[in-house]
Amino acid sequence: MSVEIISIGDEIVRGAYPNTNAAYISRLLSENGWKVLRHSTLPDDEKLLSLGVRESLGRSRIVITTGGLGPTIDDLTRLVIAKLFASDFHYDEKVAAHLISRYGKQLASLENQATIPTKAEPLLNEVGTAPGLIFRNEKNILICLPGVPAEMESMMKNQVVTYLLKQDLHPEKRAKEILHFCALNESAIDKVLREKMHKDVEVGIYPGTGTVTVCLFAPHSKDIQPLKEALIKEFATHVFYAESGTIEEALKTWMIQHKKTLALAESCTGGKIAAQLTAIPGASNYFLGSLVTYSNSLKQKILHISEKNLNKHGSVSAETVKEMVTHLLQITEADFGIAVSGIAGPTGGTAEKPVGTIWAALMERGHEPIVWKFRANGNRQKIILMTTTRILSALYRKNVYHISP
Amino acid sequence: MSVEIISIGDEIVRGAYPNTNAAYISRLLSENGWKVLRHSTLPDDEKLLSLGVRESLGRSRIVITTGGLGPTIDDLTRLVIAKLFASDFHYDEKVAAHLISRYGKQLASLENQATIPTKAEPLLNEVGTAPGLIFRNEKNILICLPGVPAEMESMMKNQVVTYLLKQDLHPEKRAKEILHFCALNESAIDKVLREKMHKDVEVGIYPGTGTVTVCLFAPHSKDIQPLKEALIKEFATHVFYAESGTIEEALKTWMIQHKKTLALAESCTGGKIAAQLTAIPGASNYFLGSLVTYSNSLKQKILHISEKNLNKHGSVSAETVKEMVTHLLQITEADFGIAVSGIAGPTGGTAEKPVGTIWAALMERGHEPIVWKFRANGNRQKIILMTTTRILSALYRKNVYHISP
Repeated sequence: MSVEIISIGDEIVRGAYPNTNAAYISRLLSENGWKVLRHSTLPDDEKLLSLGVRESLGRSRIVITTGGLGPTIDDLTRLVIAKLFASDFHYDEKVAAHLISRYGKQLASLENQATIPTKAEPLLNEVGTAPGLIFRNEKNILICLPGVPAEMESMMKNQVVTYLLKQDLHPEKRAKEILHFCALNESAIDKVLREKMHKDVEVGIYPGTGTVTVCLFAPHSKDIQPLKEALIKEFATHVFYAESGTIEEALKTWMIQHKKTLALAESCTGGKIAAQLTAIPGASNYFLGSLVTYSNSLKQKILHISEKNLNKHGSVSAETVKEMVTHLLQITEADFGIAVSGIAGPTGGTAEKPVGTIWAALMERGHEPIVWKFRANGNRQKIILMTTTRILSALYRKNVYHISP
Repeated sequence: MSVEIISIGDEIVRGAYPNTNAAYISRLLSENGWKVLRHSTLPDDEKLLSLGVRESLGRSRIVITTGGLGPTIDDLTRLVIAKLFASDFHYDEKVAAHLISRYGKQLASLENQATIPTKAEPLLNEVGTAPGLIFRNEKNILICLPGVPAEMESMMKNQVVTYLLKQDLHPEKRAKEILHFCALNESAIDKVLREKMHKDVEVGIYPGTGTVTVCLFAPHSKDIQPLKEALIKEFATHVFYAESGTIEEALKTWMIQHKKTLALAESCTGGKIAAQLTAIPGASNYFLGSLVTYSNSLKQKILHISEKNLNKHGSVSAETVKEMVTHLLQITEADFGIAVSGIAGPTGGTAEKPVGTIWAALMERGHEPIVWKFRANGNRQKIILMTTTRILSALYRKNVYHISP
């Protein structure tokens, strides 16, 4: 049962913000097994709106729109769609009673918002004022939802999914497997996929920065298993488990399971590793903090990096990150320490140490530090993010698979 | 000159994440005067992709696609569009030389990525490996960009806008003004816009997290001026200047102009403030670093926060952030210090200190610390980002406009 989503509003077409409504609806429907075929974003323009909705109704059985249901002059969705379904309007007593029960009779937009197309079935709005609308004919189901995310999400989750299931608009039943890999290039995964591909399996590869997620779908679970097993076997030491698909969540789970703590000494990543770790709820259960010693003066003051080393080898060097991680574990009580220093660019590179040169160090309390160098590509932000993921992946793989970086 | 944007990828159609690429491209084109008519998101399916691209080419002169240019099995854009334009493929020496100069000859995907449709003009990728492609016939310009945001953004900003202008694909000539405001709600701006609106002026309001950007377009500059002046007059102490539209860039410019330095003591923001500051190139010219003391033990060890204060008032308190910022300026040589401690959630809130409660402190060397409390709304990530912007805005407004937070 295929679905299209239409988001309506000049502000989205002009790029005022990303289209989070389409993402929310698609994810909810996909997780419940429906197949979303297309998103469209249309402006607040009667002609373009009418054309776009007609095109979607011609292609897909179920169409869901968001936006344009409010009482103001630029809200055109009700008008345009009532015309398409040749529907009059009427004052709906059920919608009116619901609005009055929530806002009282003095609600300025009461008459406007309770006046709905006669051929539509209303969806009551539990968060705001604009009711949703369901149009149905022999060919299509068209569901119009408000554009305010909280109103749309509540209506979608609590009413629309149930409605579609009740009306025998069930999704195809498909089996699904999701695998996450770190420290791996998507082209390596692609090679295995090409070799082991089963004709009934549908594959989605979602590259992150330094991680790759592979989704496998098929009518039957048994069709997926050979491919899943081949991938896990080939890339055994790259697999990680995390609902969010982030290496920081996987690392957090490992740290908490093993009752270990972590501290950082960051230079070129400028707090990014700490920010990524603390974006995951519950970070305080294992993460102690980060000494973001961006300047050399702070490296000396806080981490007691020797002036001799800094002068002789520079802050981007094996000697400096080794000293950073060693002193970090002396200063803090952490079980594990990470130190990083590099050149994020766009300036500061030299022939010997070009932009993207990164020195990193890992240390487990009571063990020797492990120091290594790598090169990160891209612009400043990508170099910082890639460095973050590579170092967290290195710590995860060392702990879980005993792989050296 | 009208434009449509097509985003390609199962992951977006399935709602894995919001479509930020379409928002970025639309905003860049809209700010430069082009009119974006529609966004579409299409799956990695040859038939649906071909249909969707043909539909867009039938409606709009300029079509920009993102995604599906990589070397893996689900990357279909090159194939589908080469078919539509009846183009063969060839190994492009210019693309190959550029890839080799950046990655060396051992790049696994070299042959794949340097093989492009013969009828396309390549756009070199300065961030990743997939080149962009420009197809042109008498009716359309079709520009295919990679889906990785950093790659697409660099290509769009540095190559595509210039290309479109060179090819006489000029937007309507319109005067434009862009204004950035911090510590301001978009509804406050909306009120002034409605009062002072001129019929020939088109307005785009782009709310950030804690900042708002307003774009004013009109056929003639004189039509814009009254509205621009009204906004600047009404919100004089909220205006900031930064090409990127970020308060961190405005703060950096001020700090460097005044030869001042900044250090942070972060708790609940977990390194996010430092990461935002260091994302801007040249941060090392004023930013010394951040002591991300996420745990109380680190607050005591690094910032010497008294156990008495922590026990009596808790880490989220006026007393703790005051001590944090005071000790920060004792430990570092910074001219300005920021300290923050709060409850980012989703757990850890109490009736007295609910999730979103934030205590912050600013201090200029030689002056008393300024301590204040606020409440940030939303989920964990939004609370952290909103806190970051609010505190940086407070420091900017204190320095530039002498406004207390």
